[in-house]
Amino acid sequence: MIVDNACIFCRIVKGEIPADILFQDDLVTAFRDINPQAPVHVLVIPNHHTASLADMSGADATTLGRMVDVLNRMAEAEGVAQSGFRVLVNTGPDAHQEVHHTHFHLLGGRRLGPMLAA
Amino acid sequence: MIVDNACIFCRIVKGEIPADILFQDDLVTAFRDINPQAPVHVLVIPNHHTASLADMSGADATTLGRMVDVLNRMAEAEGVAQSGFRVLVNTGPDAHQEVHHTHFHLLGGRRLGPMLAA
Repeated sequence: MIVDNACIFCRIVKGEIPADILFQDDLVTAFRDINPQAPVHVLVIPNHHTASLADMSGADATTLGRMVDVLNRMAEAEGVAQSGFRVLVNTGPDAHQEVHHTHFHLLGGRRLGPMLAA
Repeated sequence: MIVDNACIFCRIVKGEIPADILFQDDLVTAFRDINPQAPVHVLVIPNHHTASLADMSGADATTLGRMVDVLNRMAEAEGVAQSGFRVLVNTGPDAHQEVHHTHFHLLGGRRLGPMLAA
């Protein structure tokens, strides 16, 4: 597995940095965002290091499928599967990507804003 | 392939409703959002009908991998691969999901809002 020892999310995957881990298996880790933007704000990340979604591809299909399974499992566990949720991935400067390890935000638990880009 | 004849995105996939199609293959279709929220606003959808991301799973891994390939291809084609882009998927009422066929929004072309849930 590719691990970047300078990457805080790689270190969370390895257990070197504490996080509120909700799920972990061989491919994916889910944990609460430390700066939540909604009542439910979970990050779902691939365990192997990729800098952004731009560095993922069809070669990562198994991991991407598992990420969707875990997003849906987290939505159920957090009680937002019926009320609704937003999944969001920021890539690069215009999207304010802050941590350069691909992460999918799962947001819900209240009526979210109408969109998305503003 | 599962097609819902009442679904406007299924009808776009089949060519029955006009859209500004940017890409189509056996698994995925990409077209411009008719109500763009940013200079670049492309929708990437699976050709087969699923109502939302909650109806997709690891069984759709090949399609999900292709969707990521097409999102990155569209980001390149639209000139936002370097400047950055946001990918966003709304599921259910709290996220204001309007069309009940899974669709990934690709947004970019300007500095986007800092986040996401508001």
